[in-house]
Amino acid sequence: MLDQNVKQKLIAIVGEDNFFDSEENLVVYSYDATPNYQAMPDAVLKPKNTSEVQDIVKVCNEYKVPIVPRGSGTNLCAGTCPLEGGIVLLFTHMNKMIEIDEENLTVTVQPGMITLDLINAVEEKGLFYPPDPSSMKISTIGGNINENSGGLRGLKYGVTRDYVMGLEIVLPNGEVIRTGGKLAKDVAGYDFTRLMVGSEGTLGIITEATLKLIPTPETKKTMLVLFDSLEGAGAAVQAIISNKIIPATLEFLDQGTLEVVEDFAKIGLPTDVGAVLLIEQDGPSEIVERDMEKMKEVCEHSNALSIQVAKTEEEGLALTTARRAALSALARKKPTTILEDATVPRSKIAEMVHAINEIAKKFDVEICTFGHAGDGNLHPTCMTDARNEEEIHRVEEAFAEIFAKAIELGGTITGEHGVGVMKSPYLAWKLGEEGVEAMKTLKFAFDPNNIMNPGKMFAKETKKRVVVQK
Amino acid sequence: MLDQNVKQKLIAIVGEDNFFDSEENLVVYSYDATPNYQAMPDAVLKPKNTSEVQDIVKVCNEYKVPIVPRGSGTNLCAGTCPLEGGIVLLFTHMNKMIEIDEENLTVTVQPGMITLDLINAVEEKGLFYPPDPSSMKISTIGGNINENSGGLRGLKYGVTRDYVMGLEIVLPNGEVIRTGGKLAKDVAGYDFTRLMVGSEGTLGIITEATLKLIPTPETKKTMLVLFDSLEGAGAAVQAIISNKIIPATLEFLDQGTLEVVEDFAKIGLPTDVGAVLLIEQDGPSEIVERDMEKMKEVCEHSNALSIQVAKTEEEGLALTTARRAALSALARKKPTTILEDATVPRSKIAEMVHAINEIAKKFDVEICTFGHAGDGNLHPTCMTDARNEEEIHRVEEAFAEIFAKAIELGGTITGEHGVGVMKSPYLAWKLGEEGVEAMKTLKFAFDPNNIMNPGKMFAKETKKRVVVQK
Repeated sequence: MLDQNVKQKLIAIVGEDNFFDSEENLVVYSYDATPNYQAMPDAVLKPKNTSEVQDIVKVCNEYKVPIVPRGSGTNLCAGTCPLEGGIVLLFTHMNKMIEIDEENLTVTVQPGMITLDLINAVEEKGLFYPPDPSSMKISTIGGNINENSGGLRGLKYGVTRDYVMGLEIVLPNGEVIRTGGKLAKDVAGYDFTRLMVGSEGTLGIITEATLKLIPTPETKKTMLVLFDSLEGAGAAVQAIISNKIIPATLEFLDQGTLEVVEDFAKIGLPTDVGAVLLIEQDGPSEIVERDMEKMKEVCEHSNALSIQVAKTEEEGLALTTARRAALSALARKKPTTILEDATVPRSKIAEMVHAINEIAKKFDVEICTFGHAGDGNLHPTCMTDARNEEEIHRVEEAFAEIFAKAIELGGTITGEHGVGVMKSPYLAWKLGEEGVEAMKTLKFAFDPNNIMNPGKMFAKETKKRVVVQK
Repeated sequence: MLDQNVKQKLIAIVGEDNFFDSEENLVVYSYDATPNYQAMPDAVLKPKNTSEVQDIVKVCNEYKVPIVPRGSGTNLCAGTCPLEGGIVLLFTHMNKMIEIDEENLTVTVQPGMITLDLINAVEEKGLFYPPDPSSMKISTIGGNINENSGGLRGLKYGVTRDYVMGLEIVLPNGEVIRTGGKLAKDVAGYDFTRLMVGSEGTLGIITEATLKLIPTPETKKTMLVLFDSLEGAGAAVQAIISNKIIPATLEFLDQGTLEVVEDFAKIGLPTDVGAVLLIEQDGPSEIVERDMEKMKEVCEHSNALSIQVAKTEEEGLALTTARRAALSALARKKPTTILEDATVPRSKIAEMVHAINEIAKKFDVEICTFGHAGDGNLHPTCMTDARNEEEIHRVEEAFAEIFAKAIELGGTITGEHGVGVMKSPYLAWKLGEEGVEAMKTLKFAFDPNNIMNPGKMFAKETKKRVVVQK
């Protein structure tokens, strides 16, 4: 619980209306989209501007009160679960579009802006903000930046990091700095802009962001390709890239996912094939046509069972919407859904999916896999029940083996979800103890009192997924 | 001078053949491509592998000996001038191409590899490494990464940072870490990969890099557009981007530069116009044709005096080669050439060039300006004589005003050259004292003994350009 003195100081900053500490309010912010993690904050605050954020941070730094900055809580690494209590900071009032600059192709926003609102606003000007995390309907830009969110268009267009040009940041000591700007090139000092992207709220609080835009692609085409085996789909992914085509989207769904998605979306997807690729290309229409033809050929050579090109934009949209619904669809099957994002070099996808299936069999757990095949970013998803302790233990062991396999194949423990609490026990598998130590050095140099989202990124002694259950 | 004990330890690591401390050897590495900076190192070492680098760093950290990692010394910020003595580390033996991975579109190299050799090697496989600093014929990849080098293709393709996927780094404590990998998506921990890019050798030593490749654009077209005024050229740059065209190259040369370049290259460039744009587009031929047509129209509307599309690839190459020769051409005019890279948002280019001309007049110094108009990355270049102290003082004052103007217009003190010693007095103008302090915090957390390229990035008391003249 907050000290009364601290509470009064915080209320003096944001006002009674923007300070919440009733039981029902605290429960709402005690968890995020990650199953099995819950911890109560001591208060929830809604600052109205950077200056209030700055004052809050100064108070918290003085009294060593943890701060958890939170967007819409859609992250899947328990990154916004207030593990050590303290305050949750919401950006509900700081959700404005500040400017679209059509001359410099930038947009400047406050962190609370909803991703899809931003995408729609710039599209009205013929501009394009490519990062499209599956949660974009409700996720915020601040959350996307903190997690370096990916999405379906990562292969061709990159991830959130590739679009952040400048930031306003409140540091753990309460000072405000501005990094970057509307500048395609800027090498004045260390790249704090990208250092902040994906730092999961552990280094400071983002209060404004300038993002890069590009012209909207003229047209887009979508196709669905069925394969009887994983190998076929994997070979097709390889062959597309070897043929020097970089599609906008190159998504993979295994048989299990397909079945569940069709049951949910009911758009006539086949459910009896080994694997499916959902492929999109965008750009000038002549190039899109040419690439689609070439990719059809490539898929035929990789023994595709059938190739279906969406006849209309609506039909294409229905296919990608179905793909985006994969998590929701899988979540209907069992009380608990654990979605992971082990990632491997693109060339290792088929091998990785096979390994996942073997591991699921070994531990007798139910795992479906879908994901961004072009990126090697897979989402093995386990349908389970958190109340069944014995099964959850097997699920944990299975995922640990999956992470180990990803590392063995030159991959990583997390492609786009972040480390948070969930992956922290495995971070050293990717970075080595020396790498983790170097990152801790950086963290504690910036935040000696460890007030910024403590307990994230770096593991404590435990390796258990379920760390707090109040 | 090195302590005899330290010298013996270093020789034991690299061997007599790779340790140099004769006067003539030291002089060679006492300066780089930046005029007016010189300081003698105590020794020059050529390690053969990561393990030797690691051992060298451990010795230097123990005995607090400065280390300056150096590629080909083409940087323009005095970034590799061994200001505080110590050892210069050369990567002459660590210059191998380790692997081109056509499946994952990556190349893995040692830091000493020459940039153009890498570009040529991957082009043989139909692949493309876009970063093309003007010094690419002799610069090394390690140097490019340390400086986050830009180039002519930055507008469309980004800079070195955008192509670095993974690094092997020897930290100042002698530990080796590996970051990233052949992964389009990886959010395991802080983004140390990008933190190292552009860190100017102040945080560690890069011993291996995995870089991203893309398919080679199918075709390329070049055109030269003449304007009677800066405004015309500036308006055309604006209009091209507003028309949603992102050309591969969009270079600007003012009248002064043009004259000197023609005198040097003798390819029939006009020398009596106000400004020139050199424009290239690459990609599928139908799109290149379409974009070139549209850009011609746009330039006509911006009152272009004439538009000349290169008829052959050779003719196009001659034009870009002439542009790349701008610095060399200008360097012939006077004993000392100081090339700066103040950068502004693209929309402010005409305003900035006008300001540069006014400032040059005010201080009675000779400045020509050329640069990457699409990026807002300008190169005001002063032809002067370092032996004329009074003039050099005026040059310093002029550049200080130029930097101040760039900042006023939302720009930065350096777009692609780095801070080094040369810009360190101005760093706080861009970042604020708080920003510089935060960066110092990071530096000293990593390198408490300040052995890694000391004296760079962060200014001492002085503001003078000429800091050491032995």
